[in-house]
Amino acid sequence: MQKHGGDIYTYMEQFGERPLDFSASLNPLGLPAEVRERLADTAGLEAYPDIACRELKKAVGAAENLPAEWLYFGNGAADLIDRICYAFSPDCALLPAPTFSEYERALKASGCSRIIFSPFRRENGFRMDPDFAQQIRQGTDIVFFCNPNNPTGCVEKPEHLLPVLRVCAEKGALMVLDECFNDFLDEPSQYTMKPWLREFPNLIILKAFTKIYAMAGLRLGYCICADPSVLAKLSQAGQPWNVSTIAQQAGLAALDAGGYRADTASLIRQERQYLREALQKLGLTVYGSMANFLFFYAGQADLEKKLLPEGILLRSCAGFYGLEPGFYRAAVRTHAENIRLIESLEKILSTR
Amino acid sequence: MQKHGGDIYTYMEQFGERPLDFSASLNPLGLPAEVRERLADTAGLEAYPDIACRELKKAVGAAENLPAEWLYFGNGAADLIDRICYAFSPDCALLPAPTFSEYERALKASGCSRIIFSPFRRENGFRMDPDFAQQIRQGTDIVFFCNPNNPTGCVEKPEHLLPVLRVCAEKGALMVLDECFNDFLDEPSQYTMKPWLREFPNLIILKAFTKIYAMAGLRLGYCICADPSVLAKLSQAGQPWNVSTIAQQAGLAALDAGGYRADTASLIRQERQYLREALQKLGLTVYGSMANFLFFYAGQADLEKKLLPEGILLRSCAGFYGLEPGFYRAAVRTHAENIRLIESLEKILSTR
Repeated sequence: MQKHGGDIYTYMEQFGERPLDFSASLNPLGLPAEVRERLADTAGLEAYPDIACRELKKAVGAAENLPAEWLYFGNGAADLIDRICYAFSPDCALLPAPTFSEYERALKASGCSRIIFSPFRRENGFRMDPDFAQQIRQGTDIVFFCNPNNPTGCVEKPEHLLPVLRVCAEKGALMVLDECFNDFLDEPSQYTMKPWLREFPNLIILKAFTKIYAMAGLRLGYCICADPSVLAKLSQAGQPWNVSTIAQQAGLAALDAGGYRADTASLIRQERQYLREALQKLGLTVYGSMANFLFFYAGQADLEKKLLPEGILLRSCAGFYGLEPGFYRAAVRTHAENIRLIESLEKILSTR
Repeated sequence: MQKHGGDIYTYMEQFGERPLDFSASLNPLGLPAEVRERLADTAGLEAYPDIACRELKKAVGAAENLPAEWLYFGNGAADLIDRICYAFSPDCALLPAPTFSEYERALKASGCSRIIFSPFRRENGFRMDPDFAQQIRQGTDIVFFCNPNNPTGCVEKPEHLLPVLRVCAEKGALMVLDECFNDFLDEPSQYTMKPWLREFPNLIILKAFTKIYAMAGLRLGYCICADPSVLAKLSQAGQPWNVSTIAQQAGLAALDAGGYRADTASLIRQERQYLREALQKLGLTVYGSMANFLFFYAGQADLEKKLLPEGILLRSCAGFYGLEPGFYRAAVRTHAENIRLIESLEKILSTR
């Protein structure tokens, strides 16, 4: 069972060429030109990175319109998930199901003995369980919530997340809100919980350059929290040089990428709509899918294996807690690439 | 108190220009040209890194003349120190003093309740305490040993480390042998414990591209262990995408860097000798210093502060466990740079 999407390397070993990868949900525009240019300048890479990420902190603070001192950077958002778990050693955690599997792995690695999964049910369109907040009890140390959720692409508004955050605050639990896919929504500002950071020092928001700037190979993520003692603990939970100089420089260049974000927004909006309709025309059931990936039920297992000879990687969601086989996740890519996916699916589905 | 060398960024904030950095022990030749060329090719950086580091594993296995499956890569060797501590949660550890401070930080972060420091004494030239092996008892979970040691540059031969390794094996302790500076010795092969990896599956050797290829800003390290269950545990102790694509590519290019290693060896040999004699002529006492840095006693504190207006960073070792103020570490750099250090030191010492 594949644990994550984006494993183009196993495909390349087997088939000798690069696949068209729908299994990782990355910006189909690729690296911004500004980032490519910055990478060509290799001066300063000999030295250890700035462990305080000073320049980047200022620039991201300005871009997020938040105090720079609320930011802490990591070797991708995944580094921060590890640091949070190791720093706070939660004994009891609440997780949605299905969701990104790294929360569970990191919790287990840090010795969390009780992980409670709250099923987000198919009959409810994989939306948040209405009783989610009630599952946070005295003794719950941490709640992870991915919004938009991976792999479903379902998104909850602040009015639905606020009660969760309030109960977390009452019970003394941290709430880790993973907004790594927020930037792909049609209206990101309507969904982010950033405005509640000051009121809730128990809120940690995760973000990454990985997906929105297609920088997965460079590793750069960050978290935002208004409580300086939380960030200090994260910095002590691992090495000081976790963010490479080249990632810091690429991040700075990405923030300067002129029309890239607007181009991304319009491409994703249009192509998500195209893919949704095309998948539905093929008789597949699409759920959620408000971000840069489509989550659908095809009824048959092994679709991802049948797409391999077509040169296409699709993410089977059979490994996700709470999902039966037959669910898939496909990234939104460029129109030509999306057509290739749909035509390949059509061919496979018509010959079953 | 500075916790680590190499913080050029605080200097740049204060003085507005780049210092001449003797505080980080990096190869003074800078990035190999092959690495610079490879970095200019930004293809493939959008995708997630190969979590198995397949190509790099093969290449490093060949370069180290060891089975590729004994290798596990990290975001610098520091990532591996964290993973080892988190994966094995040692409750009792034995450390030399002084030594690299990250072992202690990582042990504490992972909840190690008992850290025993074995003082390597000045009167013994900071060499290994003759009773070091006897301090490994039933209940000792892990021993860290840095060889050559940081910050002293003292190095122990395998005949002295074998008894330590044997006692570790008897008592069920892991031995983490940090050989990150081995490549800077005049005769690296005389000192490495690589030949004992097969016999001792409790031996983990740490190595890095950081220092020998001046790639500190790119972050690439690895560990070598003959026990696959140890490496499997390390991979579960953190995110799967810890090694960036760009670090993997730079590592591959570094291994292809033609005369770089030979040039490094002859430069370090010659300049280490020059610096040793020049420091002694200034009346300073040099200890150990078999690697790419000089460790010396100057009798006065704050030498590193007095060098700042000269544009030079020196590592004060006052923060190291077991060292009184007045000890310093200076990297071996190019001849012109080393002359600048010596002239600046001469000026300061003559006016005290």
